[in-house]
Amino acid sequence: MIRVLLVHDACLVRSVLAEWLRGEPDLRVYDTPWRGAPGHVRSVRPDVCAADLECVDTYGIPPLGELRTHGPDPVRPSLLVLAAASRPGLLKRAVEAEALGYVDKEGSPQNLVTGIRRVAEGKRFVDDSLGFGFLKAAQMPLTHRELSVLSLAAEGASIAEIAGSLHLSHGTVRNYMAAITRKTGARNRIDAIRISQGEGWL
Amino acid sequence: MIRVLLVHDACLVRSVLAEWLRGEPDLRVYDTPWRGAPGHVRSVRPDVCAADLECVDTYGIPPLGELRTHGPDPVRPSLLVLAAASRPGLLKRAVEAEALGYVDKEGSPQNLVTGIRRVAEGKRFVDDSLGFGFLKAAQMPLTHRELSVLSLAAEGASIAEIAGSLHLSHGTVRNYMAAITRKTGARNRIDAIRISQGEGWL
Repeated sequence: MIRVLLVHDACLVRSVLAEWLRGEPDLRVYDTPWRGAPGHVRSVRPDVCAADLECVDTYGIPPLGELRTHGPDPVRPSLLVLAAASRPGLLKRAVEAEALGYVDKEGSPQNLVTGIRRVAEGKRFVDDSLGFGFLKAAQMPLTHRELSVLSLAAEGASIAEIAGSLHLSHGTVRNYMAAITRKTGARNRIDAIRISQGEGWL
Repeated sequence: MIRVLLVHDACLVRSVLAEWLRGEPDLRVYDTPWRGAPGHVRSVRPDVCAADLECVDTYGIPPLGELRTHGPDPVRPSLLVLAAASRPGLLKRAVEAEALGYVDKEGSPQNLVTGIRRVAEGKRFVDDSLGFGFLKAAQMPLTHRELSVLSLAAEGASIAEIAGSLHLSHGTVRNYMAAITRKTGARNRIDAIRISQGEGWL
């Protein structure tokens, strides 16, 4: 039996997906929203975490690192993500979290079952239709520091507040904002935020 | 038999939800993403449209009006929406589109089946847990004109471009932006956009 923890924030969808997966005789399926995921990883000790990359808390950034525990008796499930080619920034985060499986939310649900079995054996599974998303993820133009500046701006922080948070001068923050606007091909700061959120970089 | 058209943009989730609904003997279920919905309404002639309020196109605003046809032989299905209390602006749009059913995505999937049967009889169905969302929808502080200004700003338009689009003077647009920032309790323009998108007003 493969022990699967399904992580998805919308209860209605998660319940139906979990019930559907339970129709497979070799899967033992548990489910949780993101905020309950770390506790479930510890108690369920899953072989596979199948996690939707959309997350309603933490500014939309899925806390993928929390799906594995550390310490004396670590739980390190294989990670499979439900992803969209239109959100390359989230794909990039999944790659950084060493996910083995990448299932396209625009594809067939059968791919989810196939992907779970594959990553449970420690093998990679990547939906072909996510190819363009990976290409865009590899071309993500902003540095980590630029992303930090832009994330604070997207939360409504002023130049002065961003400077204070990141221990930078006002002029440096302005320079970062100008670079971000240029690199994202945006018309202005608000446009840069819109583009970066749309791509799933923020 | 109740003819149901399920409208949801994520293919994987939509397929599993549709298959799950097909387990009900009195439902005949069709499904489509938002962009194919008008064509399906004409060809399927559903009794009920069960539509997720999240929409990937049209700047995230679901085109609810397109779920009914006009002209000599109109198709006017009862409308049920899958909604979240945290997006009161989208709830308000569903009310304006005269939806009969409101199912909370944070609730049990059984509510979806109950809701479909209820609205098929022309009766109202409202999940109790959406109550706070409706309260907030009723308190939405922005006028239609203010929302138009803010929507353009959120797409990255400058003050001059907004003024040109809406046939207003620059000063008037600045006054609108100031009123919007004050009314949403925001710190600045970017914060006003963030708050309004979060509430589902934009």
